[in-house]
Amino acid sequence: MFNLLSRREFLGGLGALTAGVLFSNLVREGEAKVKKGESWPYVKIDPKKAGELAYNAWFEVYCAQATATGIMELLAEKVGEPWASFPIHALKFGMGGMLGWGMTCGSIVTASLVMGLVLPKEIVNDMILDIVEWYAETSLPTFVPDKPKFVKDLPKTVANSPLCHISVGKWMKTANKAFNSPERRDRCARVAASVAYRTVELLNAWKDGTYKPTNTWNGPAAVGIPAQQNCNECHGTNIPTAPKS
Amino acid sequence: MFNLLSRREFLGGLGALTAGVLFSNLVREGEAKVKKGESWPYVKIDPKKAGELAYNAWFEVYCAQATATGIMELLAEKVGEPWASFPIHALKFGMGGMLGWGMTCGSIVTASLVMGLVLPKEIVNDMILDIVEWYAETSLPTFVPDKPKFVKDLPKTVANSPLCHISVGKWMKTANKAFNSPERRDRCARVAASVAYRTVELLNAWKDGTYKPTNTWNGPAAVGIPAQQNCNECHGTNIPTAPKS
Repeated sequence: MFNLLSRREFLGGLGALTAGVLFSNLVREGEAKVKKGESWPYVKIDPKKAGELAYNAWFEVYCAQATATGIMELLAEKVGEPWASFPIHALKFGMGGMLGWGMTCGSIVTASLVMGLVLPKEIVNDMILDIVEWYAETSLPTFVPDKPKFVKDLPKTVANSPLCHISVGKWMKTANKAFNSPERRDRCARVAASVAYRTVELLNAWKDGTYKPTNTWNGPAAVGIPAQQNCNECHGTNIPTAPKS
Repeated sequence: MFNLLSRREFLGGLGALTAGVLFSNLVREGEAKVKKGESWPYVKIDPKKAGELAYNAWFEVYCAQATATGIMELLAEKVGEPWASFPIHALKFGMGGMLGWGMTCGSIVTASLVMGLVLPKEIVNDMILDIVEWYAETSLPTFVPDKPKFVKDLPKTVANSPLCHISVGKWMKTANKAFNSPERRDRCARVAASVAYRTVELLNAWKDGTYKPTNTWNGPAAVGIPAQQNCNECHGTNIPTAPKS
């Protein structure tokens, strides 16, 4: 049994003073800090452990839920609530860029959710833009698991996009492997782990006070519409111009 | 003050019997049902109210957070926890298809999150695929607010895609309006409201036992890779073939 109760209701029912004293000894530090609408508590965790958890979870739950598992389970262990009772299975929908639609890589969606839950508003957008751009520009996967499920070495590719379809498609072309091949599965599990690892690195840096934004892309400012940076890949040379005010 | 406590810790601290009796009167029905990893409670809410909330929220928080606000605030009101203390601001990142990258429409991301939090695993994927396909195929926006912020009538367009870039781009082309125009802003606010409305309709149907899946698209099965259904729009006539096993 692990039900959530609100402190307000609790205090209302028992009388604020008595309950307040009782509870100060029962509530873990993290939990005591979470108010309605507030960010969730973060403590530094081990990026390698997060990556291993994500890698091994992938074969059951796929990218979005795997990356979330790698980070959230460690936070549940070290912080407790509200991480401990969050239903991570709710995040499975990100897999295959939204259940096979090939859109945003699910690992990026749940990495962004974790950052959204944790970070103050002055920092959150920058760090999410950092991981999106890092994903697009990095030769992935960067993570190498301790015990690979299928193969030891895998090709790495730069997607130049955070879209599942393009990221997976370029890798499949380079590796010449089918979507349902063990190699492709292992590759995506390692990508989910790579994103979990990188997300924890960034959040730990923020916790240490050493985080510095690195993102450079702003679609609406650059081309007058939300967009990726690789217009030609879909539009060829026939790139439309956005209407101007 | 609205802090989260776990029932387990609470019971541990006060003695199970006494606390259990005390609490049975304090905890709302929904809260009492949420265990670690379980789905969140849902009761039927008014889709029109959800749409109005989403529409008006958009001008402060944009699509992803607006759609989530429309649904989650009504559930917080009618159910209480865990909806009441969830930091909806954490979902802002979905705006502009991930902070301006033009990927998955943020309204679809948070509608999927709500479905993921609420629905049993036998139903969740189908309903998410339904709303993605509905978004792609429907002439949007369908929602008309009681008090439009800028303009009464707006053009409607079929995106044939759940991607922000394509959805917004086709509308901008038809309307001949810039991304930062009042009309485009009003349009996206109505799209966020349309998605909130449709999501509530689907969830209410499920609650009534009348929900029937309607989705037809499965990228990996159809083309051997996670993908949209509109290959030609990006690939032209030069559609690559996915490697086969």
